[in-house]
Amino acid sequence: MPAYATNMRLKFPILALLLEVITIILYAVFVVYDDGKGHHDDAHGHNKTEEKPLKLYPMFQDVHVMIFIGFGFLMTFLKKYGFSSVGINMLLAAFGLQWGLLMQGIWHLDGGKIKVSIFKMINADFSTATVLISFGAVLGKTSPVQLLIMTLLEITIFSINEHLVAEILGANDVGASMIIHAFGAYFGLAVARVLYRPNLRDGHENDGSVYHSDIFAMIGTVFLWMFWPSFNSAIADPGLPQLTAVINTYLSLAACVLSAYAISSLVEHKGKLDMVHIQNATLAGGVAVGTCADMNIDPFGAMLIGFVAGIISTLGFKYLSPVLASKLGIQDTCGVHNLHGMPGILGGLAGIIAVAMGKKDGHASMQAAALASSLGFALIGGAITGLIMKLPFWGQPPDQNCFDDSLYWEVPEEEEENEGNLDHEDHSKNKAEV
Amino acid sequence: MPAYATNMRLKFPILALLLEVITIILYAVFVVYDDGKGHHDDAHGHNKTEEKPLKLYPMFQDVHVMIFIGFGFLMTFLKKYGFSSVGINMLLAAFGLQWGLLMQGIWHLDGGKIKVSIFKMINADFSTATVLISFGAVLGKTSPVQLLIMTLLEITIFSINEHLVAEILGANDVGASMIIHAFGAYFGLAVARVLYRPNLRDGHENDGSVYHSDIFAMIGTVFLWMFWPSFNSAIADPGLPQLTAVINTYLSLAACVLSAYAISSLVEHKGKLDMVHIQNATLAGGVAVGTCADMNIDPFGAMLIGFVAGIISTLGFKYLSPVLASKLGIQDTCGVHNLHGMPGILGGLAGIIAVAMGKKDGHASMQAAALASSLGFALIGGAITGLIMKLPFWGQPPDQNCFDDSLYWEVPEEEEENEGNLDHEDHSKNKAEV
Amino acid sequence: MPAYATNMRLKFPILALLLEVITIILYAVFVVYDDGKGHHDDAHGHNKTEEKPLKLYPMFQDVHVMIFIGFGFLMTFLKKYGFSSVGINMLLAAFGLQWGLLMQGIWHLDGGKIKVSIFKMINADFSTATVLISFGAVLGKTSPVQLLIMTLLEITIFSINEHLVAEILGANDVGASMIIHAFGAYFGLAVARVLYRPNLRDGHENDGSVYHSDIFAMIGTVFLWMFWPSFNSAIADPGLPQLTAVINTYLSLAACVLSAYAISSLVEHKGKLDMVHIQNATLAGGVAVGTCADMNIDPFGAMLIGFVAGIISTLGFKYLSPVLASKLGIQDTCGVHNLHGMPGILGGLAGIIAVAMGKKDGHASMQAAALASSLGFALIGGAITGLIMKLPFWGQPPDQNCFDDSLYWEVPEEEEENEGNLDHEDHSKNKAEV
Repeated sequence: MPAYATNMRLKFPILALLLEVITIILYAVFVVYDDGKGHHDDAHGHNKTEEKPLKLYPMFQDVHVMIFIGFGFLMTFLKKYGFSSVGINMLLAAFGLQWGLLMQGIWHLDGGKIKVSIFKMINADFSTATVLISFGAVLGKTSPVQLLIMTLLEITIFSINEHLVAEILGANDVGASMIIHAFGAYFGLAVARVLYRPNLRDGHENDGSVYHSDIFAMIGTVFLWMFWPSFNSAIADPGLPQLTAVINTYLSLAACVLSAYAISSLVEHKGKLDMVHIQNATLAGGVAVGTCADMNIDPFGAMLIGFVAGIISTLGFKYLSPVLASKLGIQDTCGVHNLHGMPGILGGLAGIIAVAMGKKDGHASMQAAALASSLGFALIGGAITGLIMKLPFWGQPPDQNCFDDSLYWEVPEEEEENEGNLDHEDHSKNKAEV
Repeated sequence: MPAYATNMRLKFPILALLLEVITIILYAVFVVYDDGKGHHDDAHGHNKTEEKPLKLYPMFQDVHVMIFIGFGFLMTFLKKYGFSSVGINMLLAAFGLQWGLLMQGIWHLDGGKIKVSIFKMINADFSTATVLISFGAVLGKTSPVQLLIMTLLEITIFSINEHLVAEILGANDVGASMIIHAFGAYFGLAVARVLYRPNLRDGHENDGSVYHSDIFAMIGTVFLWMFWPSFNSAIADPGLPQLTAVINTYLSLAACVLSAYAISSLVEHKGKLDMVHIQNATLAGGVAVGTCADMNIDPFGAMLIGFVAGIISTLGFKYLSPVLASKLGIQDTCGVHNLHGMPGILGGLAGIIAVAMGKKDGHASMQAAALASSLGFALIGGAITGLIMKLPFWGQPPDQNCFDDSLYWEVPEEEEENEGNLDHEDHSKNKAEV
Repeated sequence: MPAYATNMRLKFPILALLLEVITIILYAVFVVYDDGKGHHDDAHGHNKTEEKPLKLYPMFQDVHVMIFIGFGFLMTFLKKYGFSSVGINMLLAAFGLQWGLLMQGIWHLDGGKIKVSIFKMINADFSTATVLISFGAVLGKTSPVQLLIMTLLEITIFSINEHLVAEILGANDVGASMIIHAFGAYFGLAVARVLYRPNLRDGHENDGSVYHSDIFAMIGTVFLWMFWPSFNSAIADPGLPQLTAVINTYLSLAACVLSAYAISSLVEHKGKLDMVHIQNATLAGGVAVGTCADMNIDPFGAMLIGFVAGIISTLGFKYLSPVLASKLGIQDTCGVHNLHGMPGILGGLAGIIAVAMGKKDGHASMQAAALASSLGFALIGGAITGLIMKLPFWGQPPDQNCFDDSLYWEVPEEEEENEGNLDHEDHSKNKAEV
């Protein structure tokens, strides 16, 4: 078993500074501002910058809010892990967007250069979403060093699969149900499987929420929910296709709320609502409508997709997650399988059907290949990444210090009255080998 | 007196699923995407979609944030009712916007269809605002089932009054002081009056804030305050009228902050500021300038309106709300009368004066009729809705379980040290008849 | 020594109402809506309103969020001072934007009038940023009356320096590293020096965070971080220069996160991350790239600036702030010297170098004069303002009641279990002379 050397004092600064210095050097060589004169820079033959370089800026900022506030606060539900949730989320996204811009850009070099535009910044933010989804699967059980390594590898693999899906297969996935949500979820689940911790089989006292942490998490949920139409439409073709993507996502999410609340009440003790479902399953409609978002599936079609996604996601949290943990050894902290995994596959399947029905130009077989490719890259890439993360010198937390900020953060001491509740210091002192 | 059967396990899921399924069916029949080719779709003869379908999208997102973050977090001030505040707010708004799009759309059918555009999505969000205002009046004293019923009825009645005011009377109300704020407030107060609870006459131990819940509420306040210029200008005529609406609202709100803070300090013990005033009365300037927002009332005119609104609203919280509760049996949890009711009437009166002074084309008599209509529909509609909500099988909470999430939500158990403070389980077990 | 008469009941309402009434009168005389027909209204010869009056509105709203949510919540990190942080922030900004619009407008009268446009509203918001930065230096140690006086004086002085820098010297400072960040920081530090409290030399029990207050602060941090590209580009020339400002700021901030995290871990006990660094130093890249934001410094140049800023800022928090407090008597509550002061100077220096290298038209000597002017106005203006604020009848808090909302706010009583932790009433009762 690995020795837990969780002191980050050298490992973490060296890795973070090294990654940033390498990135800056690569930017010096490859990256310039967009001048509006380049090759057409997306799959649809549009140069997004030429006319109005800031046209997409409001949508970019919505996506930015989803990445940094949305994902960051969604994960603050854990009672003692809020610093890491919002703080490490910020770290991974800040590195990830720099790395993602490079990794995505090398497929579209223009005179040997990557020309940064708002369009490219949106895609860079997108690439970080995969990592933040995977982060949810391993939340509380990994060190910042492990997570930086995951960010580096996952975004690299993501950009290969994205290129394959969008450029080689020519598949539709405007809202990225397959290439972001399903990919990020199954990548994270593969990592979680490799990092399986048998001692957490029966749960962990810190793996839960308190009243206020659940409300912090709702900040993330609501911002994700509100701005999801921007996520699904940001890179759609301008004009009516983009409007369609907005409307479909807006309606899918609205329908999803009703079904998620209904099923939550139906399956819980005394018909009570469960915050885990509300924080997560209400968003499944945004995931599931992603691939079809810019297609003419009709408003009610989008609502049906959201309605079904809310049901599947809530049932997944209630019945499937416990089974995955106990039978398959997949300990999925945030339940990303229910929010991103299954709804992402549902979105991919809906896309296959919609293309087959002629709702948008394309080949159903290419849609199916795109889904398969995304799942394949995710599972294999995640497993390999997990093995690398499992090497015993990345400072992963010992079991008893999981889900506890105090291992990697200075945590304020609380007054005596709350000692049992919030003083983290005791735990962090007894680092052990397992 | 009614028997309190607060177990929602069947009632709530059945109602929520039924409403959503009916809504999806109606959308399948009536709702299509806007194609930019339709009839002129607003009162001003503009088709908002034809040229640039996403022109209003940033303003839509601002309004969206007000509805879901603004209203949702504003109500989290209660110490044990944050899950319901932000969570049920989300539920009602998600259903309400679907229903509102239908109810408003049936007055403007185009070839038998409702064509969804960003403009219509903004109006759909607006329609939910009425419900969320009324929700504030009955917060903590109603079940999710009762509130879904209120949403269904209130939006239906709202859309009738809105059509009357905007199309038949031809009145100005760009920022909806009358048709949203006054309407939503008096509707909610009428419901609250019908649902009067004599046993809460002397207050309730849970009807108050704790330190952190007051800070959560400020998230709502500040987002509402910042984005109110979008609310009041979103459906204004493009160009300078829209700019005028932004400027008037921005300045009215700024002036309102100063007067609300000043009066709060003046009327409170030792000159201290009261969070209830700061969270609410600072917003009255946005309500009160609504009707006049796009009129040439001059910047200082807007500031005067905001200044007066801040004074009236703060005084209302301090002196009027207690009287309404003790003398008239109107228990207004969030003080919506002070934030939306009186400032809404003030806005309607300002609109009558401004139109009479020629600040915008119109008839003062039509403005007055619009105000009277909005109040009439609100009071009668609210009373009828209240009677329906009072039927004894909707799972309303018993008096002692009011203002307590644990009746309808799984609430995390706190550690022993905080038991007296946060453990809700004890309360929810002794359901009684009153 | 001054007698502490902290009862605000007359002083505060009279001052607030007086300021607002005077402001409204001045608006009645001077302020009209922009009609798109005026003189060119910025330094670059563009009339920003003529064509599309709301073109800048989304960027304005981003800046608005930074001012009210960003600054407001960033300062909620103190355990007992959250009401003041977000509430007094709102008060000062609401007055400040009204006053700033006047003070900046008198330099650009058009037919004797100030014509309000979105461009002017952005600048008005900017002027409040100086005050909110200075507020951070004196947070917890000043009364609302003192702070309103500071707002009045600082914005007046700011607008003189801004006019000198932008119009007379013709210096570049698009993102305001010098005229807002360095100015606001050194102004606040000068005030803090004048208001030096020897009894707080060894700290104060309330001058620290608790777990949830640190998470509230991250709301401010993340919104500032996300929207900083809008701050630095909002008043840039339209088109590619504005795009450049967005890209440079986005990349500088991303690089800054990595270096701030790395250095935080490097200098802290056991390699742990410190929330103070994460909340603040991650933003230094936005400050430092401000002056150069719209210059062709290349993406990697922006990243280098951010990378260095993150290091300097973090080291400042760790090693310089304690020295400033103990040796120079500068008690800088929020460490604005590290977030705005040094990075602001770094930004000014980077601007001198960039202009000297021909990255943008200009004279390096004028850039240097602009930096010197900003620091000079700040230090002298701050010292004079501090002396006025020190007059013994503005209700400043006694030492033992510093960093405690209960002196100026009604604070909810907590349940008995938390009495020692959160009941503020005991403290506020024993006001003393020092």
